[in-house]
Amino acid sequence: MEYRKETDSMGAIDVPADRYYGAQTARSLIHFDIGWETMPREIIRGMGILKKAAAQVNTEVGVLPADKLALIAQAADEVIEGKLDAHFPLRVWQTGSGTQSNMNSNEVIANRAIEMAGGTLGSKDPIHPNDDVNKGQSSNDTFPTAMHIAAVEQIHERLIPAITGLRDALQAKAKEFDSIIKIGRTHLMDATPLTLGQEFSGYVQQMDNAVKRIEGCLPRLYEIALGGTAVGTGLNTHKDFPVKVAKAIADLTGLPFVTAPNKFESLAAHDAVVEASGVMKTIACGLMKIANDIRMLGSGPRCGFGELILPANEPGSSIMPGKVNPTQSEAMTMVAAQVIGNDTAVNVGGANGHFELNVFKPMMIYNLLQSIRLIADSCRSFTEHCVVGIQPNHDRIQHFLSDSLMLVTALNPHIGYDNAAKVAKKAYEENTSLKEAAVALKLLSAEEFDDKVQPGNMIGPK
Amino acid sequence: MEYRKETDSMGAIDVPADRYYGAQTARSLIHFDIGWETMPREIIRGMGILKKAAAQVNTEVGVLPADKLALIAQAADEVIEGKLDAHFPLRVWQTGSGTQSNMNSNEVIANRAIEMAGGTLGSKDPIHPNDDVNKGQSSNDTFPTAMHIAAVEQIHERLIPAITGLRDALQAKAKEFDSIIKIGRTHLMDATPLTLGQEFSGYVQQMDNAVKRIEGCLPRLYEIALGGTAVGTGLNTHKDFPVKVAKAIADLTGLPFVTAPNKFESLAAHDAVVEASGVMKTIACGLMKIANDIRMLGSGPRCGFGELILPANEPGSSIMPGKVNPTQSEAMTMVAAQVIGNDTAVNVGGANGHFELNVFKPMMIYNLLQSIRLIADSCRSFTEHCVVGIQPNHDRIQHFLSDSLMLVTALNPHIGYDNAAKVAKKAYEENTSLKEAAVALKLLSAEEFDDKVQPGNMIGPK
Amino acid sequence: MEYRKETDSMGAIDVPADRYYGAQTARSLIHFDIGWETMPREIIRGMGILKKAAAQVNTEVGVLPADKLALIAQAADEVIEGKLDAHFPLRVWQTGSGTQSNMNSNEVIANRAIEMAGGTLGSKDPIHPNDDVNKGQSSNDTFPTAMHIAAVEQIHERLIPAITGLRDALQAKAKEFDSIIKIGRTHLMDATPLTLGQEFSGYVQQMDNAVKRIEGCLPRLYEIALGGTAVGTGLNTHKDFPVKVAKAIADLTGLPFVTAPNKFESLAAHDAVVEASGVMKTIACGLMKIANDIRMLGSGPRCGFGELILPANEPGSSIMPGKVNPTQSEAMTMVAAQVIGNDTAVNVGGANGHFELNVFKPMMIYNLLQSIRLIADSCRSFTEHCVVGIQPNHDRIQHFLSDSLMLVTALNPHIGYDNAAKVAKKAYEENTSLKEAAVALKLLSAEEFDDKVQPGNMIGPK
Amino acid sequence: MEYRKETDSMGAIDVPADRYYGAQTARSLIHFDIGWETMPREIIRGMGILKKAAAQVNTEVGVLPADKLALIAQAADEVIEGKLDAHFPLRVWQTGSGTQSNMNSNEVIANRAIEMAGGTLGSKDPIHPNDDVNKGQSSNDTFPTAMHIAAVEQIHERLIPAITGLRDALQAKAKEFDSIIKIGRTHLMDATPLTLGQEFSGYVQQMDNAVKRIEGCLPRLYEIALGGTAVGTGLNTHKDFPVKVAKAIADLTGLPFVTAPNKFESLAAHDAVVEASGVMKTIACGLMKIANDIRMLGSGPRCGFGELILPANEPGSSIMPGKVNPTQSEAMTMVAAQVIGNDTAVNVGGANGHFELNVFKPMMIYNLLQSIRLIADSCRSFTEHCVVGIQPNHDRIQHFLSDSLMLVTALNPHIGYDNAAKVAKKAYEENTSLKEAAVALKLLSAEEFDDKVQPGNMIGPK
Repeated sequence: MEYRKETDSMGAIDVPADRYYGAQTARSLIHFDIGWETMPREIIRGMGILKKAAAQVNTEVGVLPADKLALIAQAADEVIEGKLDAHFPLRVWQTGSGTQSNMNSNEVIANRAIEMAGGTLGSKDPIHPNDDVNKGQSSNDTFPTAMHIAAVEQIHERLIPAITGLRDALQAKAKEFDSIIKIGRTHLMDATPLTLGQEFSGYVQQMDNAVKRIEGCLPRLYEIALGGTAVGTGLNTHKDFPVKVAKAIADLTGLPFVTAPNKFESLAAHDAVVEASGVMKTIACGLMKIANDIRMLGSGPRCGFGELILPANEPGSSIMPGKVNPTQSEAMTMVAAQVIGNDTAVNVGGANGHFELNVFKPMMIYNLLQSIRLIADSCRSFTEHCVVGIQPNHDRIQHFLSDSLMLVTALNPHIGYDNAAKVAKKAYEENTSLKEAAVALKLLSAEEFDDKVQPGNMIGPK
Repeated sequence: MEYRKETDSMGAIDVPADRYYGAQTARSLIHFDIGWETMPREIIRGMGILKKAAAQVNTEVGVLPADKLALIAQAADEVIEGKLDAHFPLRVWQTGSGTQSNMNSNEVIANRAIEMAGGTLGSKDPIHPNDDVNKGQSSNDTFPTAMHIAAVEQIHERLIPAITGLRDALQAKAKEFDSIIKIGRTHLMDATPLTLGQEFSGYVQQMDNAVKRIEGCLPRLYEIALGGTAVGTGLNTHKDFPVKVAKAIADLTGLPFVTAPNKFESLAAHDAVVEASGVMKTIACGLMKIANDIRMLGSGPRCGFGELILPANEPGSSIMPGKVNPTQSEAMTMVAAQVIGNDTAVNVGGANGHFELNVFKPMMIYNLLQSIRLIADSCRSFTEHCVVGIQPNHDRIQHFLSDSLMLVTALNPHIGYDNAAKVAKKAYEENTSLKEAAVALKLLSAEEFDDKVQPGNMIGPK
Repeated sequence: MEYRKETDSMGAIDVPADRYYGAQTARSLIHFDIGWETMPREIIRGMGILKKAAAQVNTEVGVLPADKLALIAQAADEVIEGKLDAHFPLRVWQTGSGTQSNMNSNEVIANRAIEMAGGTLGSKDPIHPNDDVNKGQSSNDTFPTAMHIAAVEQIHERLIPAITGLRDALQAKAKEFDSIIKIGRTHLMDATPLTLGQEFSGYVQQMDNAVKRIEGCLPRLYEIALGGTAVGTGLNTHKDFPVKVAKAIADLTGLPFVTAPNKFESLAAHDAVVEASGVMKTIACGLMKIANDIRMLGSGPRCGFGELILPANEPGSSIMPGKVNPTQSEAMTMVAAQVIGNDTAVNVGGANGHFELNVFKPMMIYNLLQSIRLIADSCRSFTEHCVVGIQPNHDRIQHFLSDSLMLVTALNPHIGYDNAAKVAKKAYEENTSLKEAAVALKLLSAEEFDDKVQPGNMIGPK
Repeated sequence: MEYRKETDSMGAIDVPADRYYGAQTARSLIHFDIGWETMPREIIRGMGILKKAAAQVNTEVGVLPADKLALIAQAADEVIEGKLDAHFPLRVWQTGSGTQSNMNSNEVIANRAIEMAGGTLGSKDPIHPNDDVNKGQSSNDTFPTAMHIAAVEQIHERLIPAITGLRDALQAKAKEFDSIIKIGRTHLMDATPLTLGQEFSGYVQQMDNAVKRIEGCLPRLYEIALGGTAVGTGLNTHKDFPVKVAKAIADLTGLPFVTAPNKFESLAAHDAVVEASGVMKTIACGLMKIANDIRMLGSGPRCGFGELILPANEPGSSIMPGKVNPTQSEAMTMVAAQVIGNDTAVNVGGANGHFELNVFKPMMIYNLLQSIRLIADSCRSFTEHCVVGIQPNHDRIQHFLSDSLMLVTALNPHIGYDNAAKVAKKAYEENTSLKEAAVALKLLSAEEFDDKVQPGNMIGPK
């Protein structure tokens, strides 16, 4: 491999000749050879967006010449579009402020701009990574800004559509199953009936609430740190920079970013990320419930609940021929467990900021972005490869419904709880029907029983 | 001890003669001798409120005679007021639906009402625990209703005032410290200056956001399950019951409870509790940051940061005489750890509901209520016994400020980042002042240095 | 209430006249009015044990007169036996070193000793809480010692017997069910058969491993901090104190406590508690699996898996007469969730020690002790009220076994996986038996089928 | 791209012509397009090892012809060596049993073997993925076996050496710093002195214990599931297979794997993984403490504790010139947070196995392997780039030592705790030395003070 020399305040270091990054990125590759998790693409994109926005505003307020802006903006566009991803090799497990990824951005944009201007890579001329690309900025305000941009973009572009898609598919099923009366189960035990549509309507409500929860946490993610610079005071930045740069980012993304009301909070705490991760784990708990229900209702085909027939997407076993498994539920519940775990990691990081800076930034956003991505992808997968293909097993549903002892509950208002309990116990112990037991106990006539105990009358209040 | 016989559908069982509870509570005491954690008082109060409201509505819709209502309401009032707490001995670790605590409520209210009516305890006459007190209800909708009532009341009465109190005390200090310029620290390392007031303003923002987060999750806690009965269908309840009973509870509590839009969700999932617990852990992370900062800033008195003087509330050591420790921070951070742990417990419970019922209810609400209580109490304690008494150590603050090398940052716009770095390095290595180093490097004159490097000009943008 | 004055290095303060505790305890009650969780009884007992042991060794090495030892030992015995619990009112949420609970112990023992000597409470004469009771000790080494004593005693006296009891009950069932062949289930779907005894044998193995895991973490819990005093150096303690006092504690408890090999680690880190809590959460995960299996196998009675009949301990529903629920499993799984959550709290505390002291001590041990207690109690309850009474539902088991399609796996070695899959699919789609499908596909004769497919031949290797 | 047809029991599907995988892998790529996390390389290697071992034993017991073994073993070797990694594209978020990754292994080995035999890819001739490569196996026993192989290999090859390396580096520093007396700090507050070597010795003990904890959990990871096949009974496997195949795996890896004593446990529960993850989080808590201490002791350079000088590896700030940050500590603490979070994810998965199978396998092992890798890599990085280069700041250490008030503790045995407290308080309030205060209070002469209060006499018991 060929190398060129790049320098930073520590001195000179070899950098691969075909890479735009500079000394600090090269140094980080040496000092942080930890794991394989690289900085998420979404953060790199966020960096590109904010570097462009910052350059625009710096020119607007008169501290960056227009020709420098043109070069920086063009290079930043390539970062935004993902064309330069190969030049961002840094690991998540680096400086806790993301300083090295900020410098990676500064270096790549500077060198690419230098190249476009016909200059020499590494010369810092005509574009200096710190003095020009990072002008009026610090890692301490850029990296958290990129965190918020990345999270918000992923939430809007990936998460909400996926959850809404799942919600709509569940709602379609709730409607389709509206007239299928089935036995309810509480404590996993036979209970009073409901419709299969009602059962699915609960899932729809969970997903409706999921969207509300996401929307509830967004206002604090829209607030960006840029303009705080090193410690939140905004030293070395123009006084109009914060408001203008937030506006510029809003324009570039089409999303309602605003400058954070207090930059000290924005740098030193990431409660907004902790909160958003808390929303993700809430959604994960809901998804785990839904996925569990669906796989349990589909259990069997002959020795389980078996009320649902799930799509058979692949052979289920390498040893048991013909076996089909609820694999979409399995992927979904594994994702839910991961998101719950990620939330714990985010909490530990979020609780441990000190003074003017939280230095768990890369870890926190890595986990939040993974959670967003996994929920979104698994919702989409679960929708396409499971929910839309779910069919009721009418025979099984009807068999359980007519067999259940808990229809006895319909008798409470007529013969009282204690007598109704006697009927159920007798039927259970003697393995008879409820009607037989009720009549044998002389509590009702057969006709009265048939009149009072009708599943179709038990699926709502009077 | 004297006993009387009480019966349920399992048969007869001995009950202490001086207790209002009945057979099912007695049975639970035998079968769930686990730990020492009893059902929180707030849940018992919530049960009292909803039993009274249910009786009122049942009478209103014509299914409960007015004389029964009078008796039930009077007994329920005693439960609400805490007069009968000694009759609620059940453990958290019981049936996962809280069935036994619902029955405990039914039994106590029934027997107390019977006593007031001159009847015989255990006779179920004139008030039957199931047919009258539990009329149109199920554990499955009463217990989650009590969960929401308890959480909402504690949030309003205890949590928000405590957080607001801490917020106000921090804000008063932010104002008081507004003109004290001090060194900032990022990565725990010396950074550019800010005012002590600015530092505290970040904490104020965190607490402002805490209140917003709480308010954001309340709408879903206001939604109550009552009216869903056994599986969410509302079987055996009057069709007007859900809306009316939510209104009655709102009237009794003065809080905007409404009937849940989907009762299947309300019984089978407790995403609202998971969400609220997620808000609590977010606040806990924020409090841990604040408490850590304050104890670190107060560290010393002679061998630490020592910029703050914290109130000396108690002797700090049984062996080191005269030692004073940041004990309020310690209690606060222990509470934060507990709340983060509680959230994990809530997640595990919330993710594991099945079909028509989540059966982790008592555990979930026990943790949420503990989190609310601990945050509230520790905020109040931290405010009273620490924040209001914090004093700045002016000498120490000034000493650090003038000593720091990071004032060099003010030179970036004038001599560039690379030259400024040389100044800082030289001063560090030769243990001189920045000015000496800058002048020695012939980058500025002493006069220029004094003009450009003024901490008072470094605490905001230009 | 009547009061007396007590003094500490902060000055004088009112103390209830009928309490043995002194100024520092009284102060703590004012400053730490947080939550309702008081210091666990087991810690108070541990304090009594170590105070007695310390006094014995101090006399032995010649720094405490024998008459003082006699008084201290007698008072400490009352603490050990629980006679003075009412004098230990402090909350968990106090100083993070447990200093105030150490002083509470010193004060109570001193005043009780003074009383026995005919002196005046609060006079510190003839027994001084610091100079005599706390001689050669610090909160920083006494409290972690009490933590280890408490945890080890609870593990030996409560936890291991309870887990062993559950293990033995499961083993008895495994043996009892040894010849009951049933369908296996993987992914919740019908799979190849096994015996019900084999299924239970897996649970036995989990509990056998649980005991091994506990035993594996004990060596580091046996190591005690006493002798480290304030920062681990052992300042102000006799050089023979550490080894002798560990021996004295071992003698008093009958448990193999030893002095920790490095006292700096013992004060500043509580990795041993983090580790033990990790063992508890591992056991909790195992118990959750077992409890879930048993409630699912017992689901029904008519509309679930229904292979097991669980003891009917109490009425299961306030609205559904005759319903019986798997309530022991519910308590057990709630406990499991709590223990998993407690572990997270312990982790946050364990990770945040600084320099010579971890100040999350009371929170950490509160959680570990709660986990130990809850696992032990729920194992005992689950054993007594569920496992020993479990009965197989032979009809149901036989019905599922003969109905299952996965018996086809027995044909793999004879007709190959692909052909076997065709048989299973055909039988499933046409709702026939496997034999009918196999014969129709001309893959085997009916006789060959009967010869190859025998559940009794499928429960082990060849 | 060119494709060929491959078939499974679901039918035919297109597969890229240049890939060895077959129909089931292709199907999985369609149905599990979730996230970007692919099955860890270590699992693929583990699969290669066990497939080779299984073929060897199958030949040995006479159920696989020797020529088939030769082909399978050769293809498996390529999998083991990593030559075929590009043919293992599957995601973590797939079937919860890892069935598709087992089939991926079967397909790749079969097709590569077919290719070596001159056959047609996808023909299953002469090597059938199920009937030959998977002979006597199931995903349900192979995947957990690969989990254990992967974890154990990583622990031995990566983790233990890295932790031992860190331990040795810390030990070298402890020795190097043996005579440097410094102030101790408890509650972050000035306390009695110790040597810097003693401080580091605590870290050494933590790492010594870390290795013990790892060794403690290994016995249960050495136990492998292979031989259990579908549900643990060992159906379709030779009775000698389990013991022999464990021996073969032990031979191939040089590690003491044995057959699990109970295969039902091995398939249905992954307590061993939960336990190992619990060990990882314990180590993570310890590492977080060490990394925190070191960055706090290195804080400054002028406005912090500043007792240590950490290696300056890279520029610390994009805005503050000359700033150097404790970046290795930051990477380490971020890793610790991640490992703690991963443990929660593992717990959720481990608690949710059902009946004969836990279906959170890929998620669980993904997290455990990430934890092992991150701890190992960050220990190595922290050792190389931080610990070995740590230097004491003698001036600073001496300054704090002589300034501290807690040297007063040495006076306890001479003037009593209460008088000593008065000395410390007076010195603090009047900003004098302890000696001046002691003499002013007429408690000791200056000579007595100098005799009694010598830091060098305070670093151990008498």
